[in-house]
Amino acid sequence: MQTQTLERMESDVRTYSRSFPVVFTKAVNARLTDEDGREYIDFLAGAGTLNYGHNNPELKQALVEYLSSDGIIHGLDFWTAAKRDYLETLEEVILKPRGLDYKIHLPGPTGTNAVEAAIRLARVAKGRHNIVSFTNGFHGVTMGALATTGNRKFREATGGVPTVGAAFVPFDGYLGDGTDTLDYFEKLLGDKSGGLDLPAAVIVETVQGEGGINVASTQWLQRLEGICRANDILLIIDDIQAGCGRTGKFFSFEHAGITPDIVTNSKSLSGLGLPFAHVLMRPELDKWKPGQYNGTFRGFNLAFVTAATAMRKYWSDDTFERDVQRKAGIVEERFTQLAGWISDKGHPASERGRGLMRGIDVGNGELADKITSKAFENGLVIETSGQDGEVVKCLCPLTIPDEDLLEGLDILERSIHEVLA
Amino acid sequence: MQTQTLERMESDVRTYSRSFPVVFTKAVNARLTDEDGREYIDFLAGAGTLNYGHNNPELKQALVEYLSSDGIIHGLDFWTAAKRDYLETLEEVILKPRGLDYKIHLPGPTGTNAVEAAIRLARVAKGRHNIVSFTNGFHGVTMGALATTGNRKFREATGGVPTVGAAFVPFDGYLGDGTDTLDYFEKLLGDKSGGLDLPAAVIVETVQGEGGINVASTQWLQRLEGICRANDILLIIDDIQAGCGRTGKFFSFEHAGITPDIVTNSKSLSGLGLPFAHVLMRPELDKWKPGQYNGTFRGFNLAFVTAATAMRKYWSDDTFERDVQRKAGIVEERFTQLAGWISDKGHPASERGRGLMRGIDVGNGELADKITSKAFENGLVIETSGQDGEVVKCLCPLTIPDEDLLEGLDILERSIHEVLA
Amino acid sequence: MQTQTLERMESDVRTYSRSFPVVFTKAVNARLTDEDGREYIDFLAGAGTLNYGHNNPELKQALVEYLSSDGIIHGLDFWTAAKRDYLETLEEVILKPRGLDYKIHLPGPTGTNAVEAAIRLARVAKGRHNIVSFTNGFHGVTMGALATTGNRKFREATGGVPTVGAAFVPFDGYLGDGTDTLDYFEKLLGDKSGGLDLPAAVIVETVQGEGGINVASTQWLQRLEGICRANDILLIIDDIQAGCGRTGKFFSFEHAGITPDIVTNSKSLSGLGLPFAHVLMRPELDKWKPGQYNGTFRGFNLAFVTAATAMRKYWSDDTFERDVQRKAGIVEERFTQLAGWISDKGHPASERGRGLMRGIDVGNGELADKITSKAFENGLVIETSGQDGEVVKCLCPLTIPDEDLLEGLDILERSIHEVLA
Amino acid sequence: MQTQTLERMESDVRTYSRSFPVVFTKAVNARLTDEDGREYIDFLAGAGTLNYGHNNPELKQALVEYLSSDGIIHGLDFWTAAKRDYLETLEEVILKPRGLDYKIHLPGPTGTNAVEAAIRLARVAKGRHNIVSFTNGFHGVTMGALATTGNRKFREATGGVPTVGAAFVPFDGYLGDGTDTLDYFEKLLGDKSGGLDLPAAVIVETVQGEGGINVASTQWLQRLEGICRANDILLIIDDIQAGCGRTGKFFSFEHAGITPDIVTNSKSLSGLGLPFAHVLMRPELDKWKPGQYNGTFRGFNLAFVTAATAMRKYWSDDTFERDVQRKAGIVEERFTQLAGWISDKGHPASERGRGLMRGIDVGNGELADKITSKAFENGLVIETSGQDGEVVKCLCPLTIPDEDLLEGLDILERSIHEVLA
Repeated sequence: MQTQTLERMESDVRTYSRSFPVVFTKAVNARLTDEDGREYIDFLAGAGTLNYGHNNPELKQALVEYLSSDGIIHGLDFWTAAKRDYLETLEEVILKPRGLDYKIHLPGPTGTNAVEAAIRLARVAKGRHNIVSFTNGFHGVTMGALATTGNRKFREATGGVPTVGAAFVPFDGYLGDGTDTLDYFEKLLGDKSGGLDLPAAVIVETVQGEGGINVASTQWLQRLEGICRANDILLIIDDIQAGCGRTGKFFSFEHAGITPDIVTNSKSLSGLGLPFAHVLMRPELDKWKPGQYNGTFRGFNLAFVTAATAMRKYWSDDTFERDVQRKAGIVEERFTQLAGWISDKGHPASERGRGLMRGIDVGNGELADKITSKAFENGLVIETSGQDGEVVKCLCPLTIPDEDLLEGLDILERSIHEVLA
Repeated sequence: MQTQTLERMESDVRTYSRSFPVVFTKAVNARLTDEDGREYIDFLAGAGTLNYGHNNPELKQALVEYLSSDGIIHGLDFWTAAKRDYLETLEEVILKPRGLDYKIHLPGPTGTNAVEAAIRLARVAKGRHNIVSFTNGFHGVTMGALATTGNRKFREATGGVPTVGAAFVPFDGYLGDGTDTLDYFEKLLGDKSGGLDLPAAVIVETVQGEGGINVASTQWLQRLEGICRANDILLIIDDIQAGCGRTGKFFSFEHAGITPDIVTNSKSLSGLGLPFAHVLMRPELDKWKPGQYNGTFRGFNLAFVTAATAMRKYWSDDTFERDVQRKAGIVEERFTQLAGWISDKGHPASERGRGLMRGIDVGNGELADKITSKAFENGLVIETSGQDGEVVKCLCPLTIPDEDLLEGLDILERSIHEVLA
Repeated sequence: MQTQTLERMESDVRTYSRSFPVVFTKAVNARLTDEDGREYIDFLAGAGTLNYGHNNPELKQALVEYLSSDGIIHGLDFWTAAKRDYLETLEEVILKPRGLDYKIHLPGPTGTNAVEAAIRLARVAKGRHNIVSFTNGFHGVTMGALATTGNRKFREATGGVPTVGAAFVPFDGYLGDGTDTLDYFEKLLGDKSGGLDLPAAVIVETVQGEGGINVASTQWLQRLEGICRANDILLIIDDIQAGCGRTGKFFSFEHAGITPDIVTNSKSLSGLGLPFAHVLMRPELDKWKPGQYNGTFRGFNLAFVTAATAMRKYWSDDTFERDVQRKAGIVEERFTQLAGWISDKGHPASERGRGLMRGIDVGNGELADKITSKAFENGLVIETSGQDGEVVKCLCPLTIPDEDLLEGLDILERSIHEVLA
Repeated sequence: MQTQTLERMESDVRTYSRSFPVVFTKAVNARLTDEDGREYIDFLAGAGTLNYGHNNPELKQALVEYLSSDGIIHGLDFWTAAKRDYLETLEEVILKPRGLDYKIHLPGPTGTNAVEAAIRLARVAKGRHNIVSFTNGFHGVTMGALATTGNRKFREATGGVPTVGAAFVPFDGYLGDGTDTLDYFEKLLGDKSGGLDLPAAVIVETVQGEGGINVASTQWLQRLEGICRANDILLIIDDIQAGCGRTGKFFSFEHAGITPDIVTNSKSLSGLGLPFAHVLMRPELDKWKPGQYNGTFRGFNLAFVTAATAMRKYWSDDTFERDVQRKAGIVEERFTQLAGWISDKGHPASERGRGLMRGIDVGNGELADKITSKAFENGLVIETSGQDGEVVKCLCPLTIPDEDLLEGLDILERSIHEVLA
């Protein structure tokens, strides 16, 4: 495989091509193929962007048909038939059945854009600057979003400019078992000299993806919603990685039965890996004046087409949801076994996750790296997450065939055994 | 046309659908069609995103072929054959013939992402926070980019959070004829108590699109480059709107013979209206460490395919460039006549622009609005720009057929006559 | 007493004249006299500014003598004989006997100025922006210092400008008995994605005055020092209120046996209530270039004179220190009894403090206000502190005669009885 | 003279003791005496803090009498007889005769504190963050004030934290003769995309002291006032250095007949060199809530006493004012001659100033330094100002005896001749 041009011309900022230093050419559902024809099972799926698999045939067919009809590809925020279909489908298939009443803001087609739009809207709506985020939260790296992202790697790459307008409090479980971290948040909120400016909003992932597959419990999320309501604080669920079915429900917050004021989606929203994002908000929060937040690629029509197709195909009934839960059970069981086996080898490890967003915390990044490197040698693309990269993280396509899922798990098991042999 | 869902569900922030309140369904090259089958000539072209026209057949064919082959659609920053082809084509077709030696950073696929990455890189490389921007500059609305964007509409929509880390100086012509605005910038730079922190970089558009088709002269740009070199300041050309052939050259700065340290491209970079952006930088500026600036949709493979195809097709020789210049001449001549005619009617007006980025300044936004509204009635999609929306702005596809170009100009002329009758 | 002019002309921001709405004319040691000739025992002492009492005769004599000799009153940062004497006395009487080796920066003569200078120096010395402060900390209200001050009243009075460059963690005891709050701080420090930027410095009061007489334990302070050393973080002790003998030692951190990198003093530093402040720093931290931090009133010569006199008189041996400890015992015992009595009346109350910086937490601000208002009626000036004003706070002059101390305590007891009768 | 302790213990930030490396011991009116008994004429006067001379006998007498009576020295913001007398005197002697109706805020006793309070009040009153300052303006170095201070030396000493919430526009004359710099400011104000956030306030010195004795013309100040009124922007005159008679009127803005919304005074306000400051504001701007802006040394009673005495003595009629103007004429004439002489020697120089705030711009800091160093050798204390220190600046006491004034001017002339011989 020729990689010289790639190595020479692309910025040193590149990262995944360091872990997986091959040139990929093709991909179908959960299988990637490199230029030498070697196949890999994909447990990464674009970091949660390909919930419906690579080159999903129905989504692709809808896309190609739309292209063939000379449909509008790019039209700023023009009204198009594709946009209307998207909005109607979102309303009928997703929002109404869940009893949700939201307006939609279409910002630029990336997660960080959606987060910037969401937190800015919260500030405008509440007339306050502060956004509360959580330890190990990841919400993007543009300067507004970065203020809510905990990762020091990104925070230190601003050329010395401090972020503004956010504060961190501990995520569920951060202070260990037996401590409800919301006690601390609630204490700060009620404290007139605790240093916490009354927030406009809280932004939270129900399962922290980059942060290490940290799962907020249902009670914690419900209490958080209650605290927000009691203190006139907006609740923003950043469902960019955990949404679109990853946890087994379309929205990850459905498990907890809470109703956020604002929701951000991106990653798997288009279904086919196309850049796309939206912000959902309670109608009364729509304080935007025309044109106050813009962007060239807001409302990408090809994504409208594939996203609406995906919603109709996968979310019109609960078949898909149940299938995801079933596969999640398989992964959970296997990961629990693997964690036990690793622990037995003297490396205390634990399994965690919700739906098909699962991981094994192996205790340190060095071991996790060895495992994922070995897995790649053995034909599995899988990455780590967590503050130290200590969590081996499975984000396989939700549509992965059972045989590929099992093969992937087998490869992982074999790799762990080889590493710890 | 059914628009109730659109009106009900989309945030009030929507803007173009207010000026052009129809539902578009199809588009080919410079013609848009609405749901009632009505056709419009497109002098907006996605605000400069569709330089090669809607549904450009060769670009679309390349895209469909790639899709058919199950090529990688989304792969974070994986190495792919499509990425390699893009880099090689960029180097061979664009950079080498122009004597440019750049490395490429692939940030999120939007302009504001590219700008955030560019200014952050400049800060890291120079160890200074200040970025100098220019009056009427537009560089995006995420918080980092917003600091360099002059538009009060966006700047006031932060919920009270001031932007940080940038300062504005007057763009070419801002202080009237006979005043070189760089005198002021240079004076501030040399002044130890003028209030201007020594900048890491200057970010500038050679032709300000949103700002009102303000054209920086060749001498001004050359002097700006000289000032930057003399003061160890990086020169960032934001070529998001003016690049990709819009001014008659691939890069808008080629006219001035200058060599920026950093260049941002987006909008027409993919050629087909797909979200895509890159940052070019002199190799020695690549101070990024692996993974320090990330994003889910960095390096969108479908855009690699169409962008490389567009470069090969339009930029392998100077045929296209000359054709753009020829059409620019047509528009310039007609706009000059129209400006004269408007002036004769008591509304002092003037023509300006470079290449096919041209406008008529009619003196106030109210008149400009009347003209573009009338034009839309008459079948022409055209928008205004400038701080008060006082400039009627032509950004037609560079590939527009002569007959459409002339028909568009005729519609504009007729609309002006009707408004000022 | 004529108060119309005072009420009409002074800004509504005035605060103490609301609690004590009389016109004071004279004061000696711990007694204030109002215009009607009524006397008050002073348990406020300028919020800790008059540790040596009002109009301390020896300090005043030194001042008058200096004035009579036409000594330099104001000389920017000129060298003067008074400054030299101050520095020598500070070194001989205070620093050397305590084994401390510090250089002295003389910023503007207020606490907030000293804090701004201290945190800025820490940033320059470490090349990092973040300053960690603690819940309920108070360090001044100019924008730099305000970032480290927890009080929402001040933080919300910025006209919407968020503070920059600081983060709060919980002070000792903030999370209740049995939880060492430094566990949380240490966890955040070691967490690469916890949202805490690696700090340049920690700024802390050993006893939080405005925050409610919250006393950091010796173990907590020692552990904090250890954490700072282990993580290359500077330890700034803000000894503005707790220093100059208030806790029974010249520096409040002496009790814990720790050695801060930077110390701020003000309030009682001059001894006579004159505006004065200094910053002490380990010599190797003196990264200032000449003139980089200035101010008209840095180094107030009259304060040099009285401060040096106070040091010689009160700190040349341990007589004064022991006397303060003795009086502290009296207050502690009485406050403990009073807290018990209040608790018995159904209002759970507790005593706390160190040295003559003591308070009774009566549980809520309303009750505390009633008590201090009644006390003022009865001839005692005493204020509340804490986030809700729930702590009745004794900061009597350290030089208070025993009979005045006992009378003040009697008045307080009588007032409490009257309020809770 | 023993200076080892001074050199060893004081931070390297010290600055005046580098230009004048002697130990001063005494001072009367315009004469300083060092420890060896050598006398110096003082043309610096505490950078404008000693307008009434060192150890002014009547002010000192009032101070000693007050001390002898055991008057309140420090009382936070208690009502005291001294405060009431100060407010009444300020109203009767200063405000009423000038037709001014202001309320008074007593912040901490330094200029930077007054500026922080003034700009924060403006932000609260207008609900906007932006404060417009001018090139070469100096308003203090705490983080809030620093945002409005142009000097790079201070701006670069923040440890990388950018200042927030202010923008600079060119001061009168900055763009050369024939250009009214307010054209630029007004253009930016009216420009919806010029990058200037609509300001809450403008802060300006009528004569820039630190900036190089730059004198704003009467027309310019009047036009600035008009622009502020027309745009609902508050006008803050920072009269810390230029006020208290320095320009020949009590307030420097009286010359222009304008009425600021907010005024800051400090430096010579106490009259005797004691730390003291106040903020004057139109009554309707007093949006402070009780206690929202505090400080230990707000309202220093000794300063109330001396300040009221100074007002009664010097400002009850126009005798003093006329005497200052007379002396100003002497300095102006001599400086004009000196500037001519220097120019003749090949160093283009010019005189400028208002009242006894005057300077000779000798073109570069190196020459100015040589002159002031030589002057110090010859017995004259005089400093430079301006961005490069290119202005030899006279701020002699307004009370300087004619013989001392003439001797000081003779020394300066001799020193210039020696340097340029």
